[in-house]
Amino acid sequence: MPVGTLANVKTVTPDQLKATGAQMVLSNTYHLHLQPGEDLVQAAGGLHKFMGWNGPMLTDSGGFQVFSLSEMRSISDEGVTFRSPRDGNVINLTPERSIQIQNAIGADVIMAFDECAPSGCGREITEKALVRTTEWLKRCISAHGRSDQALFGIVQGGEFLDLRSESARQLVALDLPGYAIGGVSVGEAPEVIDQVVQHTAPLLPADKIRYLMGVGTHREMARAIAAGIDVFDCVIPTRLARHGNAIVNGDRWNLKNARFREDFTPLDPTCDCYTCQNFSRAYIGHLLRSQELLAYTLLSIHNITALVRFTQEIRRSILAGTFATEFADWIKPVEAEPI
Amino acid sequence: MPVGTLANVKTVTPDQLKATGAQMVLSNTYHLHLQPGEDLVQAAGGLHKFMGWNGPMLTDSGGFQVFSLSEMRSISDEGVTFRSPRDGNVINLTPERSIQIQNAIGADVIMAFDECAPSGCGREITEKALVRTTEWLKRCISAHGRSDQALFGIVQGGEFLDLRSESARQLVALDLPGYAIGGVSVGEAPEVIDQVVQHTAPLLPADKIRYLMGVGTHREMARAIAAGIDVFDCVIPTRLARHGNAIVNGDRWNLKNARFREDFTPLDPTCDCYTCQNFSRAYIGHLLRSQELLAYTLLSIHNITALVRFTQEIRRSILAGTFATEFADWIKPVEAEPI
Repeated sequence: MPVGTLANVKTVTPDQLKATGAQMVLSNTYHLHLQPGEDLVQAAGGLHKFMGWNGPMLTDSGGFQVFSLSEMRSISDEGVTFRSPRDGNVINLTPERSIQIQNAIGADVIMAFDECAPSGCGREITEKALVRTTEWLKRCISAHGRSDQALFGIVQGGEFLDLRSESARQLVALDLPGYAIGGVSVGEAPEVIDQVVQHTAPLLPADKIRYLMGVGTHREMARAIAAGIDVFDCVIPTRLARHGNAIVNGDRWNLKNARFREDFTPLDPTCDCYTCQNFSRAYIGHLLRSQELLAYTLLSIHNITALVRFTQEIRRSILAGTFATEFADWIKPVEAEPI
Repeated sequence: MPVGTLANVKTVTPDQLKATGAQMVLSNTYHLHLQPGEDLVQAAGGLHKFMGWNGPMLTDSGGFQVFSLSEMRSISDEGVTFRSPRDGNVINLTPERSIQIQNAIGADVIMAFDECAPSGCGREITEKALVRTTEWLKRCISAHGRSDQALFGIVQGGEFLDLRSESARQLVALDLPGYAIGGVSVGEAPEVIDQVVQHTAPLLPADKIRYLMGVGTHREMARAIAAGIDVFDCVIPTRLARHGNAIVNGDRWNLKNARFREDFTPLDPTCDCYTCQNFSRAYIGHLLRSQELLAYTLLSIHNITALVRFTQEIRRSILAGTFATEFADWIKPVEAEPI
């Protein structure tokens, strides 16, 4: 899922997005609550109609962003109170309120309001957050008022594999249509993320959707898919684009680099995206040097296509029974970086 | 002609541009000379291939921009010497050099290097610029090395109608494939521009292309077409877009205005552009308030379509013999603003 935080995938129209092959888009409840507000999105006929995307959509719960406002919030069993960074107003976000907002926004999948314990906070705090996450999930289920929206739960437990097992066990007992692995993308080392994913994904039912939140490099996706993950979201393709970078064969190239100045080949000659079919590395470098916003559109189109195409090729190889051999380089175990 | 200064129409892909109905694109020689340089554009296979636009293109001569660098240039009969605002290097731009650069860039129509006398500089300076413009035009014709590019001359003469007549007479004698009216868009009062256009357009041969440079409001275009003008260029549609404005029925609306906040109708319900077919005023206002760049793309698509559609409707009415009645409101004489 490309990320469309504020009801748009940055610099890309829905038509361009559809052409990348992306099927589902994530939008952020926290951001939409602040601007333009869920009432406006609802009055527009819901998020799909508001932003002109007629494919599946998912909203997160807002929890991740609220817990990132470390100095502006207070947490209790009831929920989280914080000051809006926009106008300073006090906002209460509870499991019930998050679901109510997501019901109004109207995505196809909505996420439970969970407590994301910060990386490295220790076992005790992580365990408390796990317990609270399950309690809050039960309140989310009670508050959920729309049968046309699927509610997913989020497995917590930090880097502690036994806590991940316990969280997964509690969530699976609630028989939800999908489960996410949360709390793995916040400054965590790649080998820790990998360990958590390899341990947790197989604990979730294979006939339900399994979603790894906030992850999207080639290697992370390949290994997570091997462990059973079905869905990802990641800002990487569009964020890299806005920094002038293209994703080519899983590498990142800065198109402002002088070596591309007179390079008239496409970003990736094997790619069938609009950008690669019509423009050269030299042209995109020129647009970036000229600070032309079109560069971000062209790079976003390519980067999203590159990630989607990677998962499409994995799907094909799985169906053909060749995943383990074809993608052997990508699913090699992740080793800790030498210190 | 939408303006694609640096080998792109800002925030719009060639596919999106084609869908607006725009047929021809203008690009700026001065800017392309500084970045990426004409040699690179030529090495890419020419401007069309470089920027992915396979329709007609025109480049200006660079003169207009160079003459605007008032404190950084010196003018002689030979040409203009100026310091690059990019790196401070001294650059000589002569009629021969301008044509050489435009030959390398490779547009379908190239413009003669003319002297644009500043507005209000008086009759003597304007007359000298007129004489020099004709001399420079002759040197441009001699220097022009590509039979697949049409070279247009530019009528000068400021606000002095007899000088406009003299300039037109001198240019028409050189039998060029097209003629432009220059020096009318630089801070000149609308009624003066109008007077010059109404006087000059009929002096140019009706079987050649007649091009009014830098003009593009509904009223200016309607009156200029009535006087015989065929082609315009203008940054208005894309520049207004980047300031959050939509062109609707010739008016300009600021979409950040609170009155559009809950307005779920398209910018113009009669418009068939991608933006109006898929998005509401409320959505575009939301994107602008969120500083989302997609707003500029959507507004540019609509604004270019609005201007192109206006000229398409004029063409239809001319063929139907109803131009004068159907567009009576637009071709009313321009009156000086009350002081």
